[in-house]
Amino acid sequence: MNHSTLSHKVVGTGAHESAPRIGVIGGGQLARMMQEAAIALGIRLDCLVEASDGSAGQVIVDSSVGAADDVEAVTEIAHRCDVMTVEHEHVPDELLTALEIYCPVYPSAQSLQYAQDKLLMRKKMDEISMPNPRFFHVKSLEDVEDALQELGGTGVAKTPRDGYDGKGVRIIESANDVHEWLEKAENGLLLEEKVPFVMEVSQLVARRPSGEIRSWPLVQSIQQDGVCFQTIAPAPVDNVLIDQARFIGEKIAHELEVVGVLAVEMFCVEDDEGDTSFIINELAMRPHNTGHWTIDGARTSQFEQHLRAVLDLPLGQTDMNCDVSVMVNVLGSELEDPRQVYSHVMKLCPEAKIHMYGKAVKPGRKLGHVTVCSDSVEHAHTLAQQAASILRGETKEG
Amino acid sequence: MNHSTLSHKVVGTGAHESAPRIGVIGGGQLARMMQEAAIALGIRLDCLVEASDGSAGQVIVDSSVGAADDVEAVTEIAHRCDVMTVEHEHVPDELLTALEIYCPVYPSAQSLQYAQDKLLMRKKMDEISMPNPRFFHVKSLEDVEDALQELGGTGVAKTPRDGYDGKGVRIIESANDVHEWLEKAENGLLLEEKVPFVMEVSQLVARRPSGEIRSWPLVQSIQQDGVCFQTIAPAPVDNVLIDQARFIGEKIAHELEVVGVLAVEMFCVEDDEGDTSFIINELAMRPHNTGHWTIDGARTSQFEQHLRAVLDLPLGQTDMNCDVSVMVNVLGSELEDPRQVYSHVMKLCPEAKIHMYGKAVKPGRKLGHVTVCSDSVEHAHTLAQQAASILRGETKEG
Repeated sequence: MNHSTLSHKVVGTGAHESAPRIGVIGGGQLARMMQEAAIALGIRLDCLVEASDGSAGQVIVDSSVGAADDVEAVTEIAHRCDVMTVEHEHVPDELLTALEIYCPVYPSAQSLQYAQDKLLMRKKMDEISMPNPRFFHVKSLEDVEDALQELGGTGVAKTPRDGYDGKGVRIIESANDVHEWLEKAENGLLLEEKVPFVMEVSQLVARRPSGEIRSWPLVQSIQQDGVCFQTIAPAPVDNVLIDQARFIGEKIAHELEVVGVLAVEMFCVEDDEGDTSFIINELAMRPHNTGHWTIDGARTSQFEQHLRAVLDLPLGQTDMNCDVSVMVNVLGSELEDPRQVYSHVMKLCPEAKIHMYGKAVKPGRKLGHVTVCSDSVEHAHTLAQQAASILRGETKEG
Repeated sequence: MNHSTLSHKVVGTGAHESAPRIGVIGGGQLARMMQEAAIALGIRLDCLVEASDGSAGQVIVDSSVGAADDVEAVTEIAHRCDVMTVEHEHVPDELLTALEIYCPVYPSAQSLQYAQDKLLMRKKMDEISMPNPRFFHVKSLEDVEDALQELGGTGVAKTPRDGYDGKGVRIIESANDVHEWLEKAENGLLLEEKVPFVMEVSQLVARRPSGEIRSWPLVQSIQQDGVCFQTIAPAPVDNVLIDQARFIGEKIAHELEVVGVLAVEMFCVEDDEGDTSFIINELAMRPHNTGHWTIDGARTSQFEQHLRAVLDLPLGQTDMNCDVSVMVNVLGSELEDPRQVYSHVMKLCPEAKIHMYGKAVKPGRKLGHVTVCSDSVEHAHTLAQQAASILRGETKEG
């Protein structure tokens, strides 16, 4: 049995000094929700935040202010932590690699590149025989026109790096639509087939360095303008597909040596014979919006599992504690502060588990989410939508 | 609809300044676990702690150091909070009453006196026809001898105030056994019948100022040396008793105008005909050890419910998310730090939900707890005991 991760940086004899200490780069809602799990386990988070009173800074005592590429600030944290992790993919590779002198960094730069660069990801998925859409690496207007012809006139153009929540993704019918992207791109663009899906799903898995992998039930995810809007767990698909999704998620986690939570976002497609299968859309290597339901609906939340995984601790059970769990994001609000209508939403939707991230209201901003666990998908759906709608200020108070 | 509690002290326009703010006196594990719920709801805790790196200070950014009777420190917190609450009963009445100039204090001094003073509590229970054991208010050695004779030679002596976890409680057979207590007592002692119980149970309820009350399922509690050691939810008793316990809990919450969580600890007794009923043992007006299982086993934890109640928000659902939930306390440990054996305990007991309070190890100290949710009480019991035993350092690593 190996205690090294948990004990190698004990710097004092007090209970707080001897706590396992995890450095987190990025001070948004993911670090905030990690803190809920960290408190329960007596784990100390040491977080690099963008603002001391931001989403994570409000609730993590050991917060320091700095940008994700601030070498000095990040190194200082790594120096005193047992392990480092990230809450988003926008940390420079070189910095992650440099940190490994001080402590393990999970996911490693080696793994994380496949979540940072969509072109690398597509090539890797081909290499390990995971289901890609048809894709082209395009570097010129001619490349784009040729590829569009192969794809029947329509394609999905993606900047390989720095895209998220629908940014850096565009459906195009002509090379002119990506004229300026091509000019700015150092290494061209990705042009993919527009997949005619019947459903979008997300397979969440967690893996620890020693190789153990655990998967949560597959979820259906409903997007709105490229942003995850609602998830339904479990996804309403048959057992053959459930097993197939799980195989894909675990295979990718294993092959890419991911440590921590991995979300594999996939399209569910139907062929002419009505047979259904999956095509991989995106990868994320961190707790993911499509896993927020696990806080209330699963025996182990994705946040607790991520902490256990990066500390190389045995993983927790991933089964549901209810028949169905529906999560709806609170994206923007007409209200000055959605917490003003807590009385209203809690009275009308007693089943709603409300999570607010302590962020100021901006149009379309992810301010929080609501989860409803139930034995009926319709009931859970209706209540979660209603609760989120009240928090968005769309429903007048009764 | 009334927003007053949630909006009357908004001091800025930022998301953090406009958060509902709850002052908490007492920086132990209860405030720590309240913080987990506060983070999810975007509620700001402002906590008076005894040490900045203690159980609550480690995880609550807005912590100030001071004793529970430090008028200046407590007043300063009340000045900036929307409501105040306490994590233990040892706050002077006069101080609580004085704070009400600044903001509501829940539970109020008026309610809290019945949790602070066991003699007052007994008299109040009589007054509202709730089941007391036979009891005597004794002020002299003669009183004690007379009462002991009435009780058949054995009684339970209690100091009316400042007892907890078995302290200030003594089983006696002679007045001499409480000689020194009597000398120090300002207003005498309480001498109660030693109740021959078949089971100890705890009824947890929550009440908000507007009167709404919600009850969790009754739990069986197993004590060891006067300290709660294990709880089993639901308690293995029939429905008539379940209803009776719930009636008692809700009646007391209503009559004493408790705001927040109330725990009614009771003895389950059997008469000569084999009929079972309850006798009240103690009251606590705060989240309680016998409710820790609700974090993992109920739709709304006692900590979230307490925050909702003191903010006068509608209460959450109290039903279980599993068939049975067993909680075992980690009381002391042979290990320097129980977190050193996380690998071992998580591997052997994957179902165990581990909660550690960030406290240094001392003999018998409440360091944490473990909850197992299952469909079998035997399975839950075995695993929770095993996990706690490993964390206490009693089981050698395999």
